[in-house]
Amino acid sequence: MSMDIKEIAEQYGTPLYVYDFDYIEERYNSLKDAFAGKKSLINYAVKANSNLSVIAHLAKLGAGADCVSIGEVKRALSAGVSKYQIIFSGVGKRDDEIKAALEYDILLINLESEAEMKRVEMVAKALGKEARISIRVNPNIDPQTHPYISTGLHENKFGVEIEMAKRMYIYAKKSEFLNPVGIHFHIGSQLTKLEPIAEACGIVADLVRSLKAIDIDIKFFDVGGGIGVVYDDEKTISPQAYTDAIFQATKGLDVTILCEPGRYMVANAGVFLTKVLYEKVNEDKRFVIVDGAMNDLIRPSLYNAYHRIEAVAKEGEKTPADVVGPVCESGDFFGKNVPLPALEHNDLIAVHSAGAYGFTMSSNYNTRPKPAEVAIQGDKVKLIRKRETYEDQVRLELECMEESAK
Amino acid sequence: MSMDIKEIAEQYGTPLYVYDFDYIEERYNSLKDAFAGKKSLINYAVKANSNLSVIAHLAKLGAGADCVSIGEVKRALSAGVSKYQIIFSGVGKRDDEIKAALEYDILLINLESEAEMKRVEMVAKALGKEARISIRVNPNIDPQTHPYISTGLHENKFGVEIEMAKRMYIYAKKSEFLNPVGIHFHIGSQLTKLEPIAEACGIVADLVRSLKAIDIDIKFFDVGGGIGVVYDDEKTISPQAYTDAIFQATKGLDVTILCEPGRYMVANAGVFLTKVLYEKVNEDKRFVIVDGAMNDLIRPSLYNAYHRIEAVAKEGEKTPADVVGPVCESGDFFGKNVPLPALEHNDLIAVHSAGAYGFTMSSNYNTRPKPAEVAIQGDKVKLIRKRETYEDQVRLELECMEESAK
Ligand SMILES: Cc1ncc(COP(=O)(O)O)c(C=O)c1O
Ligand SMILES: Cc1ncc(COP(=O)(O)O)c(C=O)c1O
Repeated sequence: MSMDIKEIAEQYGTPLYVYDFDYIEERYNSLKDAFAGKKSLINYAVKANSNLSVIAHLAKLGAGADCVSIGEVKRALSAGVSKYQIIFSGVGKRDDEIKAALEYDILLINLESEAEMKRVEMVAKALGKEARISIRVNPNIDPQTHPYISTGLHENKFGVEIEMAKRMYIYAKKSEFLNPVGIHFHIGSQLTKLEPIAEACGIVADLVRSLKAIDIDIKFFDVGGGIGVVYDDEKTISPQAYTDAIFQATKGLDVTILCEPGRYMVANAGVFLTKVLYEKVNEDKRFVIVDGAMNDLIRPSLYNAYHRIEAVAKEGEKTPADVVGPVCESGDFFGKNVPLPALEHNDLIAVHSAGAYGFTMSSNYNTRPKPAEVAIQGDKVKLIRKRETYEDQVRLELECMEESAK
Repeated sequence: MSMDIKEIAEQYGTPLYVYDFDYIEERYNSLKDAFAGKKSLINYAVKANSNLSVIAHLAKLGAGADCVSIGEVKRALSAGVSKYQIIFSGVGKRDDEIKAALEYDILLINLESEAEMKRVEMVAKALGKEARISIRVNPNIDPQTHPYISTGLHENKFGVEIEMAKRMYIYAKKSEFLNPVGIHFHIGSQLTKLEPIAEACGIVADLVRSLKAIDIDIKFFDVGGGIGVVYDDEKTISPQAYTDAIFQATKGLDVTILCEPGRYMVANAGVFLTKVLYEKVNEDKRFVIVDGAMNDLIRPSLYNAYHRIEAVAKEGEKTPADVVGPVCESGDFFGKNVPLPALEHNDLIAVHSAGAYGFTMSSNYNTRPKPAEVAIQGDKVKLIRKRETYEDQVRLELECMEESAK
């Protein structure tokens, strides 16, 4: 980022999320270019960073949206994503969500179980509509990532096995209210190995071929998301290697490739800025206490995730410190044994790679307001989400108290 | 709860938090009674469940409030807690929070480091006020609980060592702007063993005695929170055993005992209600997919916490199932291998012991609205927090988009 991060922190306050929109554009283009000449659609996984301005930025570049709740579908529509570029995934959809998705006439609904298929059929029937669907297949591949974000093994809740998928396609094909147009898999997040993806692609492409043999014609081949990024010193998959593996596996199939990257697009576009409140030493252990906390960025607590942390514009000999927030839990930390120079009150700390699964997972624990979000594009800086206030946090409670006092 | 839980779920929708206010009253009284005849104040730890109506309910019973952010202090004041019954703790306080706390003239500010003491002094000086303070001592006791909620060992960020505390008291005593009136410790949460508490009490009481010898007179002896509750089959500490241990350790000291229970008051007053969306079997594994998710109740994911789960008004042979939400993470579960009867769409599931660290830790991950909260008191049911809407979630973003479009 070329902007002066310190000025931005002064102007908008801390804790603060700052996103580099030029970087997001580069990332989108790098992937789009790797798909050049093939029918493809990049459905940005809204869950990674669902700020309306982030989605709108990607929509302007041509991205579609991968949504996992009707709220995310509404965000995508409101941010200007075309309805035929929106897909609705997720293991558990409520009837009212299914109904709304059908009424919005989005590209397709991705099914994750037989029971869900029956409900989508029922809702479509009640509306007198045909639901375009895809089915999430669980290819039983170990993605070699964190167990919480690994989703491609049978022992987890996602997708259906190959044989079940076949039965579901046959059922859907016969149904008046279902139109099976797509197939989907997603084996996990933060993938840094190409082999599991290539293998899963191959398994699912074979299924497409065998469906074709029984006259079920799959038009959308959705490879999911999960492309890993560099948090520390990971070796990651190049866009070209990624698409080559997909092209290889789908050779001979006349399909549009969909993919659903979230982290790839936004993780390293974001930095979380927080100010030093105090330094503290307990026995021999050094703590840097900052004004951001686990409620703002829960990845270190929840996944033990590594985020590179640095002091902004501060020199000096570095010694290891735990960077911790004000929340009364030992789990409230951003990093452990981080080499940092001596720090004073109001010094600025940058927690890197915070653009994905940062703000979207934030809470109000300890009645802490959600941070503001800012975007940098070219030489412009703009606020894309205002800092929450105390009043914002209690509004829905106060309304109840006032109504019951009447 | 005597009310028909199913009716409540119908009326208010799911996912839903329901709290039994009569139970909260019983819990408060059980502890208050155990302090009978001694100067004491129960400062409810607002972080456990900070709904304004919950705090107001406890305030009416006589409880004070233990707050860890200025937002929590505002909640307590707004809920009717008297200002002299409010304490402000936490390892990291911003200057504006310290200033506000001094202006509100609350009972005391609890200090967790020397650096923090200096800042409080500075802010008090600027306001021309004297800050009533206590110091959190880290007695270096292993509380024998989950590492994330264990806070009494030196290797963590909380409190200061005994020797440091002494130096701080001496400094504060000399300062024109600091008035050291209290002492504090808190060794962890979900404590089920009395010994560590008794031991910590003893260490801190000895410190009070040695402070008295140098003419520093501690009036408030704060034993923190952390009294454990039954989630599964834990043996817990009885209120009488708890206060006996405190009385024993503080014998001869003329102090008011403060304590800061959170979980004890509210955990088992709450139930989280969620409806079945689908049942699903992958290989041999049974999943019950419900409309609640980790964004609503993160304790199972974050701490691997056990919550008893049962199907409401549903009989039949039970087989083990994972109860999972719609969020696209394997970490999105409420319970694993829970014995449950066969379930259908719309069947109601109760996740017990959800009154503490449930709603307060909820997020909007996957653009999921925060659940509504309902209180039952006698034969009355009332909504104490409205369900969030999509519009509530995007308001602070839309305002930015509209302003920048101008
Ligand atoms: C089905 C699906 N698609 C896409 C994604 C986005 O993953 P990532 O951000 O790793 O690209 C996820 C993440 O959980 C997912 O579950
Ligand atoms: C200082 C302090 N007091 C009180 C509490 C409340 O703990 P519990 O809910 O276990 O009683 C906590 C919990 O983290 C705390 O850190």
